[in-house]
Amino acid sequence: MSTAGKSNEKCVTIENMNENIIRLEYAVRGPIVIRAGEIEKELEQGVKKPFTEVLKANIGDCHAMGQKPITFFRQVLALVSLPSLFDDPSFPEDAKDRARGVLKGCKGGSVGSYTDSVGIEIIRKHVAEFIERRDGIPSDYANIILSAGASDGIKNVLKIMNQPIDNKRPGVMVPIPQYPLYSATLAEFNMHQISYYLNESKGWGMDLSELQRAVDEAKEVSAPRAIVVINPGNPTGQVLSRKNIEEIIQFAYKERLFILADEVYQDNIYAPGSKFYSFKKVLTEMGPPYSEMELASFMSCSKGYMGECGLRGAYFEIINICPQVKAQLLKAISAMLCPTALGQTVVECIVNPPREGEPSYPLYKEEREQVLSELKKRAKMVADTFNSIPGFSCNEVQGAMYAFPQMQLPPKAVEAAKKEGKAPDTFYALQLLENTGICIVPGSGFGQQPGTHHFRTTILPQTDKLKAMLDTFKTFHKKFLKEYS
Amino acid sequence: MSTAGKSNEKCVTIENMNENIIRLEYAVRGPIVIRAGEIEKELEQGVKKPFTEVLKANIGDCHAMGQKPITFFRQVLALVSLPSLFDDPSFPEDAKDRARGVLKGCKGGSVGSYTDSVGIEIIRKHVAEFIERRDGIPSDYANIILSAGASDGIKNVLKIMNQPIDNKRPGVMVPIPQYPLYSATLAEFNMHQISYYLNESKGWGMDLSELQRAVDEAKEVSAPRAIVVINPGNPTGQVLSRKNIEEIIQFAYKERLFILADEVYQDNIYAPGSKFYSFKKVLTEMGPPYSEMELASFMSCSKGYMGECGLRGAYFEIINICPQVKAQLLKAISAMLCPTALGQTVVECIVNPPREGEPSYPLYKEEREQVLSELKKRAKMVADTFNSIPGFSCNEVQGAMYAFPQMQLPPKAVEAAKKEGKAPDTFYALQLLENTGICIVPGSGFGQQPGTHHFRTTILPQTDKLKAMLDTFKTFHKKFLKEYS
Repeated sequence: MSTAGKSNEKCVTIENMNENIIRLEYAVRGPIVIRAGEIEKELEQGVKKPFTEVLKANIGDCHAMGQKPITFFRQVLALVSLPSLFDDPSFPEDAKDRARGVLKGCKGGSVGSYTDSVGIEIIRKHVAEFIERRDGIPSDYANIILSAGASDGIKNVLKIMNQPIDNKRPGVMVPIPQYPLYSATLAEFNMHQISYYLNESKGWGMDLSELQRAVDEAKEVSAPRAIVVINPGNPTGQVLSRKNIEEIIQFAYKERLFILADEVYQDNIYAPGSKFYSFKKVLTEMGPPYSEMELASFMSCSKGYMGECGLRGAYFEIINICPQVKAQLLKAISAMLCPTALGQTVVECIVNPPREGEPSYPLYKEEREQVLSELKKRAKMVADTFNSIPGFSCNEVQGAMYAFPQMQLPPKAVEAAKKEGKAPDTFYALQLLENTGICIVPGSGFGQQPGTHHFRTTILPQTDKLKAMLDTFKTFHKKFLKEYS
Repeated sequence: MSTAGKSNEKCVTIENMNENIIRLEYAVRGPIVIRAGEIEKELEQGVKKPFTEVLKANIGDCHAMGQKPITFFRQVLALVSLPSLFDDPSFPEDAKDRARGVLKGCKGGSVGSYTDSVGIEIIRKHVAEFIERRDGIPSDYANIILSAGASDGIKNVLKIMNQPIDNKRPGVMVPIPQYPLYSATLAEFNMHQISYYLNESKGWGMDLSELQRAVDEAKEVSAPRAIVVINPGNPTGQVLSRKNIEEIIQFAYKERLFILADEVYQDNIYAPGSKFYSFKKVLTEMGPPYSEMELASFMSCSKGYMGECGLRGAYFEIINICPQVKAQLLKAISAMLCPTALGQTVVECIVNPPREGEPSYPLYKEEREQVLSELKKRAKMVADTFNSIPGFSCNEVQGAMYAFPQMQLPPKAVEAAKKEGKAPDTFYALQLLENTGICIVPGSGFGQQPGTHHFRTTILPQTDKLKAMLDTFKTFHKKFLKEYS
């Protein structure tokens, strides 16, 4: 075998590999983030830069940005991992109680056993009770499925409807801007992405006319099957009003669409007057026929006040699913054995947290409120700062963990980007990274109205760092404008 | 909306859902196991049965069967979960050392942060060192990818080559009997399963002529891309000889096949004279052109002596992959964010266990050896017992965690099964379950030569329970024969 023709002799080459994978993009971990990783390594090796550290504002990774875990959660995790700690009197009784409940639900009393593919039964029951308390509407634990992160659950639900109808590819309505898991999954599954634009001038709300336009155009080339709604919005930070949710449900009913409600930021509500309504609650309270619509709602341990991204815990609730389809969904999930038992343990902590009167309650409450009130402060700070920079405009960050400001880029910058074969927002983000160490994700990674330029930044850096970051950003932008004006 | 036509009005129905999912089967958690779960509930509710508990010999779920976790592993897990335990002097220094290493590799020093999509760098480095010690051959950590269980890694690798060639579906060679993750994944991906039969009369070895037959026949309808080898074998328990591995590699080279080596049972070797050789070691030592072949080798935390199934830790090594293809693989993985940080922590414990001279070493060694020597005893006990039952024959369980005995079923039983529309081995397994509480998986779930009847049982019940189970099995079989003779 000669070295020359070697790559041609591989079994799997870029020419004969899965085209869907080649088409798939995931900007949150895309080229800019990869470059940020390289820069971090260069800094470690002593390479001189105009900054001393990379600030990763690209990803909703709370603990990476210095957020502390909720003590109670970690106590329960330690107890289920090493049950000899039950003898340690320094662990509070309520943590032991939760850990005991989890272990009782594990075969052989060990988190090292496979759980049911849909998750540990007692945790599923507690999830159902949690949803009932939240919505004031019954929830059946048989409809609760635990998953290894919300992404896992979302992919499993989308997979089920991946079937051409009348020779047309199945289509899924996705907001633009969107969280790129959706575009990546649709690319991987070779499903048709039906993009509907959120209305930036109305605080990223949803216009019915735009939903209608999107689905009508899509019908020529695809069979619309489902609509994805992210509420609170990622990357856009809006919190949908109850009225807007009702309109979307009516639209989905009319168009016979399965609703995927990505509600992983349901605890992250900051703006005065904003309130989280679950799609399940609204749809149920609307009564028939809406209350009989198929819905999957997703929740995660990675966001909220806990931010346990690395532990891969999540659940989703499915309602009104055809029983035969549900059986197929459960079968498909079973081949992957089970989501991690320790991720499931975190779900248990979220849905069955310390109650008033229990020993861990005061600390739990304090830690939770501290995280949420800091995020609230930062949500305002980020939007206010960007709005104070000439050429930037940023909607109120009502919820979630991100701001998605729009920026006016000078024509010369757009030209310079073109010369380098880059989208203007990518060009800007790379310059920002190389000059300041600030890592953001260009708007093109989420989708945006053609001709507009945005980026997503998280609101997660600790308040002092965030202030410093915003100052640096401002200074950079002034220099950038000067250079390209 | 009338109740009558309701199911027709669903968006997703059994008629319009993903056909690949409908075709997918996963017997290890199939109908018999579902029935076993129902029986367990009936027992809980006080329903009288000829037995008091269900014995789940259907799945390689070590802790569920009473195996104890390795203390060191769980200490490290507790420490990374709740770092305040570093102040607890009862934790050994080497456990603290490993936990410190993991946390240093986590952003913000928390397992609650997302890790790199391919896993925490320091753990990947330790995996590479572990493989080097095992094989005596260099390993590059850039080729190591951590995953949420081996299943996750296997699916990611198979996905990459899911592309028709000259309008033919991609084909993957899979042993029969096989672990049903493979058939399930190929069904889900709509890839062509190329079944090659293991030779039961030669201890489940691989015959080259059979490999050739299988691939030649498959070429008419598919484009063969890869071959899966499970060594030690699941469900068949064989350990491949070095010579057999060399032959397979030569065959794969000739046919230009990517090799997937499922080596998750590499620590589970029991038979005198049996030895584990990794495909990487053999292929590398064979020199060019074989040493340049594409290979993915899978290892898991769920098996071996640790049996941490519920924690979803695993890794795989890829070698000689086309760099562009590798970049695409990494991109596809990144959209799922990361495998669980606590599962990764278990990988760290496996590849960087207590060393001689460290405080945890004696206990670790004792626990590890105890598990493996018990399994060795049971492997022999199970094969010997089945060989002592008239009409049963069972190959030596050289490795892994299962026996796959063949049984002669009386024609009347085959007829009775037919009447119920069941495969004869499924009929037998259901009768066994209903009468004794013993849950096994019928051979048809793994594939078998037409006209033969097998089942898979694990060797995992604790020795006393296993003895009792085998006695019950024997008694049941006698009665079964009497009933159907």
